[in-house]
Amino acid sequence: MNSYVNPLRDPQDRRLPRIAGPCVLVIFGVTGDLSRKKLMPAVYDLANRGMLPPGFGLVGFARRDWADQDFAQVVHDAVKENARTPFREEVWEQLLEGIRFVPGTFDDDQSFERLRDTIRDLDTARGTGGNHAFYLSIPPSSFEQVMTQLRRHGMTERHEGNWNRVVIEKPFGHDLESARELDDVVSVLFQPHEVFRIDHYLGKETVQNMLALRFANQMFEPIWNNHYVSHVEITMAEDIGIGGRAGYFDGIGIARDVIQNHLLQLLALTAMEEPTSFEAGQLRAEKKKVLAAARVPDRYDLHTARGQYAAGWQGGRPVIGYLEEDGVSPGSTTETYAAMRVDIDNRRWAGVPFYLRSAKRMPRRVTEVALSFKRAPHLPFTATDTEELGTNALVMRIQPDEGVTLRFGAKVPGTQMEIREVSMDFGYGGSFTESSPEAYERLILDVLLGDPPLFPQQEEVELSWKILDPVIEYWASLKQQPEQYASGTWGPASGREMLARDGFSWRRP
Amino acid sequence: MNSYVNPLRDPQDRRLPRIAGPCVLVIFGVTGDLSRKKLMPAVYDLANRGMLPPGFGLVGFARRDWADQDFAQVVHDAVKENARTPFREEVWEQLLEGIRFVPGTFDDDQSFERLRDTIRDLDTARGTGGNHAFYLSIPPSSFEQVMTQLRRHGMTERHEGNWNRVVIEKPFGHDLESARELDDVVSVLFQPHEVFRIDHYLGKETVQNMLALRFANQMFEPIWNNHYVSHVEITMAEDIGIGGRAGYFDGIGIARDVIQNHLLQLLALTAMEEPTSFEAGQLRAEKKKVLAAARVPDRYDLHTARGQYAAGWQGGRPVIGYLEEDGVSPGSTTETYAAMRVDIDNRRWAGVPFYLRSAKRMPRRVTEVALSFKRAPHLPFTATDTEELGTNALVMRIQPDEGVTLRFGAKVPGTQMEIREVSMDFGYGGSFTESSPEAYERLILDVLLGDPPLFPQQEEVELSWKILDPVIEYWASLKQQPEQYASGTWGPASGREMLARDGFSWRRP
Repeated sequence: MNSYVNPLRDPQDRRLPRIAGPCVLVIFGVTGDLSRKKLMPAVYDLANRGMLPPGFGLVGFARRDWADQDFAQVVHDAVKENARTPFREEVWEQLLEGIRFVPGTFDDDQSFERLRDTIRDLDTARGTGGNHAFYLSIPPSSFEQVMTQLRRHGMTERHEGNWNRVVIEKPFGHDLESARELDDVVSVLFQPHEVFRIDHYLGKETVQNMLALRFANQMFEPIWNNHYVSHVEITMAEDIGIGGRAGYFDGIGIARDVIQNHLLQLLALTAMEEPTSFEAGQLRAEKKKVLAAARVPDRYDLHTARGQYAAGWQGGRPVIGYLEEDGVSPGSTTETYAAMRVDIDNRRWAGVPFYLRSAKRMPRRVTEVALSFKRAPHLPFTATDTEELGTNALVMRIQPDEGVTLRFGAKVPGTQMEIREVSMDFGYGGSFTESSPEAYERLILDVLLGDPPLFPQQEEVELSWKILDPVIEYWASLKQQPEQYASGTWGPASGREMLARDGFSWRRP
Repeated sequence: MNSYVNPLRDPQDRRLPRIAGPCVLVIFGVTGDLSRKKLMPAVYDLANRGMLPPGFGLVGFARRDWADQDFAQVVHDAVKENARTPFREEVWEQLLEGIRFVPGTFDDDQSFERLRDTIRDLDTARGTGGNHAFYLSIPPSSFEQVMTQLRRHGMTERHEGNWNRVVIEKPFGHDLESARELDDVVSVLFQPHEVFRIDHYLGKETVQNMLALRFANQMFEPIWNNHYVSHVEITMAEDIGIGGRAGYFDGIGIARDVIQNHLLQLLALTAMEEPTSFEAGQLRAEKKKVLAAARVPDRYDLHTARGQYAAGWQGGRPVIGYLEEDGVSPGSTTETYAAMRVDIDNRRWAGVPFYLRSAKRMPRRVTEVALSFKRAPHLPFTATDTEELGTNALVMRIQPDEGVTLRFGAKVPGTQMEIREVSMDFGYGGSFTESSPEAYERLILDVLLGDPPLFPQQEEVELSWKILDPVIEYWASLKQQPEQYASGTWGPASGREMLARDGFSWRRP
């Protein structure tokens, strides 16, 4: 099998390639959307880029009466439809040899016996060395059952040189207490270093580029602090409603759904001190430090805002309000818009508000981190010269239209000194011929390599809940409907007022 | 005449327009290239933009047997050919009413009597209030004669409320001593505040934008010093040879021709401290301060370089060398490439070399100021991650392709952390609908308004010669041919070695 070479590898690149060693990836919940749209295509893309070894096995487990070839067909279709890289028969053939399916349910001992036997067969046939990753693409409520079964059937045995890892997805609980309970369940079987929590935002190229931008350059660090930054806005806007996800979303709300994880992780990467290296321990230590220093200031009535989308217009069509969506409980107080100010109590950021906002049914889909700078302390221009001058801003555009924008003042052509805001732009698309791997490609590879920097630790999860819990409790205590906002608008008045009180207004991204 | 309105004025602009008051502009040397290509079109463009008053007169003086209407035709043709704004008959008609021509020579009293009478007639006819600007577009060797004649015929009389100004162009001498002599000649008749020295680079939009960029923004100032900047390169490259200018250029050389004025002015604007305002006194004080602190370090053999273009290729065609050009003296040691390091002895810039270079017959025409930043003191990446990372740079592109570029490191898409240099760009053309006035439009208007910030003072001229004189003396003392470089290349090896000794290399602009 020595003939296997990486077809897409740049021959100029002298670095050791990151290629996973032999192992089996077991996916629970393999019939779900995530699996079909993201996980299976990512596995194929990794194989196609030569990052999976010949000795790789993929096992699906689900309540379906499928044979191996049925499951293989499902994977095949998912790859054809959703993979990023071109379909190549020889790559698929090699992957196919290691694909297995185990039909079963979580409460059935026999299912797990079959799973154990299947994995053992693969271990032998593919020479995996007993290395197993279990991907739990299932509701957290089933974690305990699966853990019990894995233990009972001896599927996480440790012997010299092998590894066992578990991959879990958000939600990591719905508050601090439940997050701890969930961790207790997983910890029965897995050590902290064996648990890989996926926050897929951290797998995004643009999010990792935040680290490159801040720490590989000399020119941004000197202004990255409260001497120069006036405030920071972290926005994650969706232009869709809840779609068919009422069962998951209603009663949870957007703050728990994305602020607890994605937005607070973006905040941590934006605000943390420079780690000595990107080794997992160093990076996590800095993220934890800054999350521990972060809090929503008291007076949640002034520094937070929530809303619920009403009927309105989206993409030129009328759309219904949240309360009319299928599956939403009557009179639901679940928020679809959440905004809050976060202060960071350290030397670098004291006095600089970080405004987080996330919402559904906004005018457009956009995720970005925008640092706004103070005005220069003195302007040697006349007041009229600078009438159209805003404040400088550095915007890291996470998605879509990935890149970086700098807003600054320049002279308007003409015989007067008139300054106007202009922007400079760096776009990922225009600057690199390389196309960006999907977040899941990066993250699955990291799991198989045991490379943990991009996975939040339990402590980060808990720190994030500590920030969010009091706000959610406050909102619940109001026993009111969230403020309604028309679909297709930038959210409720309370969100704007929250910034206006501090003398700011939201950027129009 | 109240019906005169500014047709191109933005009705949204609430500021007072900068419109000159009634006056006469007298141009000596009106048959020259500069007059036809720049001055006459600039006068028309100003009129077309509503910035000249109805009471404006234009007088040409030259050794030609022309009547007013012959001269008017010359102006008309020059405007049609070279004006920036569209030709409009009604604007031309109004301008035409104030156009006069005086045939004559500098040594002829009668010529100047005719000139005086013509100006007096215009004063009466157009109501200029006795305001006169004399533009000396003639060789400095004739200044003394013209001054004597102007005085003898009482053309610079001061009475209450009127003004007299003189406009002179480089060369302001060919060394410190001759610059002082020249100033003495002009000072006989004009006070320092009445002398407008034109360095047309200061009229360029992109040069004025350097002031906006530095002082209207908050994000550049913190890194604009020796803590962050490693070195600065100021380049003015021409892709042509001397053309028909051997008579002027040979024996002068490119250092005197452009480094003494354009490049040292760019250096001053790049390096000076922030003036309290752009009022002329404040701005000039800062420029003088920084020029007084600037010097080429001793060991001119190491820190300067010069060259002379040999035959080579330009634009796909063979071209001849400098010594073969018509009018160049045999064995001429005049340099067509000059480079030198300038150190600035103050707190902000100590330890940061400024490299100036100017040359003819380069691969392309470009003028730019590039600040290169130090590498970050620590990189939390592995060495291989950052193999392709250069240093950050901020480039102010003066011409052509006017704008600003920022070079920085970003993550290359892929599952490794690999950093590569990318750039962000702001282009004047793409960002403003307003088209840029020509430098001469701005500067002539400033002369008529008596608005002096963009005109270097005699003291700046002298400070610049103090920087340059020792270098030119050193070169002369060598009694050698400058190093030859092939036309169409970036200059002699000594220019590259000069930077290499300091651990740098020239940017490829």
